[in-house]
Amino acid sequence: MQKLWQKSSKQRFDRDVEDYTVGEDYLLDRKLVLFDVEGSLAHARMLKKIGILTTSELKKLEKGLAEIASLAHAGKFSIKKSQEDCHTAIEMFLTKKYGEAGKKIHTGRSRNDQILVTLRLYSKAKLREAQKAILGLIQALKFKSKKCRGIPMPGYTHMQRAMPSSVSMWLESFVESLEDDLLLAKAVAKIIDQNPLGSAAGFGENILGLDRKFTSRLLGFARVQKNPMYCALSRGKFEWMVLQALSQIMFDLGKFASDLLLFTTKEFDFFSLPDAFRTGSSIMPQKKNYDVLELMRGNVGIFTGFQYQIQEVIKNLPSGYNRDFQLTKEPYLKALRLFLGTAKIATSVAVNLVAREKSLRAACSKELYATDEVYRLVKKGLSFREAYRKIGLEF
Amino acid sequence: MQKLWQKSSKQRFDRDVEDYTVGEDYLLDRKLVLFDVEGSLAHARMLKKIGILTTSELKKLEKGLAEIASLAHAGKFSIKKSQEDCHTAIEMFLTKKYGEAGKKIHTGRSRNDQILVTLRLYSKAKLREAQKAILGLIQALKFKSKKCRGIPMPGYTHMQRAMPSSVSMWLESFVESLEDDLLLAKAVAKIIDQNPLGSAAGFGENILGLDRKFTSRLLGFARVQKNPMYCALSRGKFEWMVLQALSQIMFDLGKFASDLLLFTTKEFDFFSLPDAFRTGSSIMPQKKNYDVLELMRGNVGIFTGFQYQIQEVIKNLPSGYNRDFQLTKEPYLKALRLFLGTAKIATSVAVNLVAREKSLRAACSKELYATDEVYRLVKKGLSFREAYRKIGLEF
Amino acid sequence: MQKLWQKSSKQRFDRDVEDYTVGEDYLLDRKLVLFDVEGSLAHARMLKKIGILTTSELKKLEKGLAEIASLAHAGKFSIKKSQEDCHTAIEMFLTKKYGEAGKKIHTGRSRNDQILVTLRLYSKAKLREAQKAILGLIQALKFKSKKCRGIPMPGYTHMQRAMPSSVSMWLESFVESLEDDLLLAKAVAKIIDQNPLGSAAGFGENILGLDRKFTSRLLGFARVQKNPMYCALSRGKFEWMVLQALSQIMFDLGKFASDLLLFTTKEFDFFSLPDAFRTGSSIMPQKKNYDVLELMRGNVGIFTGFQYQIQEVIKNLPSGYNRDFQLTKEPYLKALRLFLGTAKIATSVAVNLVAREKSLRAACSKELYATDEVYRLVKKGLSFREAYRKIGLEF
Amino acid sequence: MQKLWQKSSKQRFDRDVEDYTVGEDYLLDRKLVLFDVEGSLAHARMLKKIGILTTSELKKLEKGLAEIASLAHAGKFSIKKSQEDCHTAIEMFLTKKYGEAGKKIHTGRSRNDQILVTLRLYSKAKLREAQKAILGLIQALKFKSKKCRGIPMPGYTHMQRAMPSSVSMWLESFVESLEDDLLLAKAVAKIIDQNPLGSAAGFGENILGLDRKFTSRLLGFARVQKNPMYCALSRGKFEWMVLQALSQIMFDLGKFASDLLLFTTKEFDFFSLPDAFRTGSSIMPQKKNYDVLELMRGNVGIFTGFQYQIQEVIKNLPSGYNRDFQLTKEPYLKALRLFLGTAKIATSVAVNLVAREKSLRAACSKELYATDEVYRLVKKGLSFREAYRKIGLEF
Repeated sequence: MQKLWQKSSKQRFDRDVEDYTVGEDYLLDRKLVLFDVEGSLAHARMLKKIGILTTSELKKLEKGLAEIASLAHAGKFSIKKSQEDCHTAIEMFLTKKYGEAGKKIHTGRSRNDQILVTLRLYSKAKLREAQKAILGLIQALKFKSKKCRGIPMPGYTHMQRAMPSSVSMWLESFVESLEDDLLLAKAVAKIIDQNPLGSAAGFGENILGLDRKFTSRLLGFARVQKNPMYCALSRGKFEWMVLQALSQIMFDLGKFASDLLLFTTKEFDFFSLPDAFRTGSSIMPQKKNYDVLELMRGNVGIFTGFQYQIQEVIKNLPSGYNRDFQLTKEPYLKALRLFLGTAKIATSVAVNLVAREKSLRAACSKELYATDEVYRLVKKGLSFREAYRKIGLEF
Repeated sequence: MQKLWQKSSKQRFDRDVEDYTVGEDYLLDRKLVLFDVEGSLAHARMLKKIGILTTSELKKLEKGLAEIASLAHAGKFSIKKSQEDCHTAIEMFLTKKYGEAGKKIHTGRSRNDQILVTLRLYSKAKLREAQKAILGLIQALKFKSKKCRGIPMPGYTHMQRAMPSSVSMWLESFVESLEDDLLLAKAVAKIIDQNPLGSAAGFGENILGLDRKFTSRLLGFARVQKNPMYCALSRGKFEWMVLQALSQIMFDLGKFASDLLLFTTKEFDFFSLPDAFRTGSSIMPQKKNYDVLELMRGNVGIFTGFQYQIQEVIKNLPSGYNRDFQLTKEPYLKALRLFLGTAKIATSVAVNLVAREKSLRAACSKELYATDEVYRLVKKGLSFREAYRKIGLEF
Repeated sequence: MQKLWQKSSKQRFDRDVEDYTVGEDYLLDRKLVLFDVEGSLAHARMLKKIGILTTSELKKLEKGLAEIASLAHAGKFSIKKSQEDCHTAIEMFLTKKYGEAGKKIHTGRSRNDQILVTLRLYSKAKLREAQKAILGLIQALKFKSKKCRGIPMPGYTHMQRAMPSSVSMWLESFVESLEDDLLLAKAVAKIIDQNPLGSAAGFGENILGLDRKFTSRLLGFARVQKNPMYCALSRGKFEWMVLQALSQIMFDLGKFASDLLLFTTKEFDFFSLPDAFRTGSSIMPQKKNYDVLELMRGNVGIFTGFQYQIQEVIKNLPSGYNRDFQLTKEPYLKALRLFLGTAKIATSVAVNLVAREKSLRAACSKELYATDEVYRLVKKGLSFREAYRKIGLEF
Repeated sequence: MQKLWQKSSKQRFDRDVEDYTVGEDYLLDRKLVLFDVEGSLAHARMLKKIGILTTSELKKLEKGLAEIASLAHAGKFSIKKSQEDCHTAIEMFLTKKYGEAGKKIHTGRSRNDQILVTLRLYSKAKLREAQKAILGLIQALKFKSKKCRGIPMPGYTHMQRAMPSSVSMWLESFVESLEDDLLLAKAVAKIIDQNPLGSAAGFGENILGLDRKFTSRLLGFARVQKNPMYCALSRGKFEWMVLQALSQIMFDLGKFASDLLLFTTKEFDFFSLPDAFRTGSSIMPQKKNYDVLELMRGNVGIFTGFQYQIQEVIKNLPSGYNRDFQLTKEPYLKALRLFLGTAKIATSVAVNLVAREKSLRAACSKELYATDEVYRLVKKGLSFREAYRKIGLEF
């Protein structure tokens, strides 16, 4: 099959080279088809507005793109390996079915700005999903905290019992952290809300007079991403920025899981989860394990690994499009999927968490109150340092 | 010398253990003394307000802290290894000189919230410096871009000549990117603008009635960081968030340097820098090297390495203070110093950059205009894909 | 479907939890089936030897395992999501078809040591493949170097022309580096050549008297991995060690690609590759891009990202099996696949590389010989530093 | 002060640029002076052998280098910031004191191969130290294991009690792991044992006829590192390889510390360390914390951060020397220092570790023996899977 950039069918292409360059994009792009259709539709309408497409050509393209969208919704729009990516598959579908009109849709557009706008729309949608998921988690934590009001819990420093604390204080520390994380996510959502479509191959276009404000309006972007070289520069950069913001949340969830893995040991026994959350062992019949929590803990490293891959690929690349960018797509899509899965599970965990009040109370031993003793002496007039030494000698 | 937490002078402490645990904090903390003094002053005034300190005790502490500040300004406030950190050195100075008052300053405070507030004030100051430095760089780039208006430059994709571009378009791509980076930095500055002082050892305090709003006002924080366990959780987290925001800028600067290292090769010869920016070789008498640009490029990895260290240390730590946190201090301070140094150098480079117009014009060869040719055929009515194939066969 | 660790069919299991815990293991494990069969066969033979299985039971298992192997060879052995992994799928296949014998194969074995031995056999096979691939690459580079004997090339330092060099010296620098890398790979292959089978759930077994030397001999391991807790500890550790060794090679290949991307710019024009290695642009009809080289360069970061994920997951985990380990499987398999693909492409590149002698000679300008001039003065008796200053003033 | 590469004193050099380029090398290099002296001595003797230096000139240089060595031993050989590095400081010292001879020592040598050989000698020495330290740790662990023979301990999987284990099995799992790590360290030590001196600026030398075998013999290298471009390529690569090997050990120590932090909680109470290993709190008088263990745990991330910095700096750099390499020096030196400090502390911990037998025995509860029960049923003829289900229903 001929590729978009093959000028005649005579060009041969090394098979190994094809395997290596196409990778799994033709599979990954399935998640992106709908967003590409959205961007292509706006582009086509703009081409009509500036006189490149006729009304009837636009109608054909609109029809074709709607067909692609419903195929994609039904999981039936296929992208062949030889097509490399969804951009090619879409153009070929349109050309095959609607002839000339299909051959015109790529006017004034490069796959560079096409994938940029596709990923930008995808990122905006996923960030919205992420924010919603975290709001749900926050609610679950607040609800559980209210339920546990009054249950004491030792506060640990250096993994040793330190001060009196409570289940609610512990749960709400995650609430406050997640609320701050959401502020960051919101800031990033605002920064990336700009339209790269029309930057073409990364240097804009001077002949056709593309109307970038028009496509921005159609696609719901807050603004045009003006400098075309900046559009190219933002490939990977914005993906990385999105993951940076979400990594703050992953770290909170990792800490939550790590705490729980400690607190659900037989030795601590502060919390438990229903059997539906516990898995067994293939050899030890008695085991009930919190695999879910272990995976939440471990997935922090998997997530930052994806983030790392994007960061590494874009680092110190020369300006302008480089093929390396394409390697950022897989870790980005995988990281977002992992994030949403982890947020969902964390919410389930929060909802189903059982505080074992008896153990928690029993663990609130005398030494937790040593600092309170010091303060009582301080209130009686002793200097803090003297009171501290005095109480300290009791231990 | 007795440590803050030694209750009697009889306690022995393994020498190797001391070396390993104290590390270089006693050196690093020199940069933090003034911020600790600021936090201690607010704490003392609050203690007076709630009746723990008398007016005369507060006066003594104010005097002592002012003395420490002026010693620190003059680089003469020393922190001994045996003192572990600036917190201890400050308390000991006050106690030695002002007796009882000194022994009272730590009332209701732990080194945990003391270092938290110290680093928070430090972070706010450094983020302000960073933003100012980047604004300066943006100005320099804009100025240079204006100077270079009209100078053409090939646009590269895949490191091959692709489309017509210009020196200004290239320079301004960094301007737009840095402007977005500043939005992120600003968002982070706003998130971290909350007061952890009063969270004590990470679980608050119930006896003394510390007035956290009062210290927030004195220290210029936008709000109290309420949940004390969240205060502890934010150790490292906020440092990491600050570096994440700045890493976006470091990456822009790394790309700028990488571009320039390519463009200053003899083979490209698009730009040069004055001799004051070039260094020689110990063996090759003819060499004039752009070491500064190489270091900007390389320091991206050093910077993200510091960021990585913080991230690794805090990952999946249990809730509450852990000594591991202390290991985040050195990479944080070093990263900020490196950032500011790099921003400064980048500004110098931008100001002194010389565009070699003759080479730039010569490099704008015919093939850059192939896409324009395609568009001219499109304007005459050919479909894009046909026009593309037609022009393509010429190459 | 009932899982290995479900004791009765009444146990419910949260659907989201299942999705999150099983992940894509049931897909990944397809690559591992043959190695699992190999390990299972050895285990069964050993069980017969120590009297757990009868001769007829062993025969059934041998037959069943052979069937699984030929199904797997034909790509027809399916692992269902509900089966979680290949271990379960294999046991269920055997039990369904051969009744009691199937129910006995897991005696004295845990999925922990089963996956350990499966991955160990897989690692050994892949390391052999990797070494063979790199030997091929070395040959290709040596052959090309011989072909290019006598073609000069500027030697660059700081990306500036520095000293006379040659195409052969450049190519052979990679040969020597790869030869050292192979020494490292060989050392790692030797270290991991030990048998974890029989460590059961990570604490061995005291009742049945498993014969670990026997399975080691059957599976071709150099030795038994004795301490069962060390077997568990080596999960992820050995995968990481393998990738560390291979990352040295990936870095050499990344440098090779980066050099070539510079040397194939129009401005340098030192080398080229046949059209079968070059791809076009969807918008610019004139473009011929070296995507293959860009992907080699970019995949260094993807590879180290997988390595990073393994490292992050295993870091500071408590002793004994933790479910987090399972997350190391995907990055490990992907990294090895990426490595082998990159090595193959690099060999193709080396074989097909064309040195553009005319450009190379033209680039060997006078300044390259400045140090030679210095040495000529030195030979006449001038001190090096004086001669250096004298020649330096000419530039 | 004039730099080695300044041809006349008229050259100005931007102050900021100097700060940024010199960094802290002039401080770091103090650790390297003795190794540089060793390399310089061999170089001088070789220059005498090939006729560049007279016998009397060599004598002067030998004397001068001996003086530098004894100054360095006494911590009195200073390197000024303006001198950039120890190479310059040494040449200047020799030139100032011994005139012409000093000006000749750099003949046929570049700072590139000078730092390469200096770091190579340093690496060999540090790897020897590291191996010795780990042998010591292994001995300590073995000794402690022998002392604890017979003390039972629950074996944990998924952080839940799983199977019977013992203190000795746990300790010896680290012994076996460290023994494998030593094999890797030894392999790396062998790979890097090659002499880069004589590669000059990275492209060798054709006029003077340097005798590289002679210097290899003098310096105790196993072989010459032949290809000069490979010598340049190995900068950073070998440092990275050394740290990769040592990172395996750091990970073992991190796991050891993490285990202990869990096992020294009040809730587990399996082990303790003497008071000399415990530190207090500035606010809570009762606290006795295992800071040493927390720092061991946290320093794993700091160590891999240094490793990451080196890896990031060298990744995809073009062939030949690049100034970026210089940035690898600091993380390398710091990582080695951190490694040796951690190994020392770990040994102290192993020696002083106290097993709390009573708690350990109490924790060996009934469920640990469930699998043994299964096996007993298996011995009676039940199939494993049936026996497993039967015992499983009891829990």
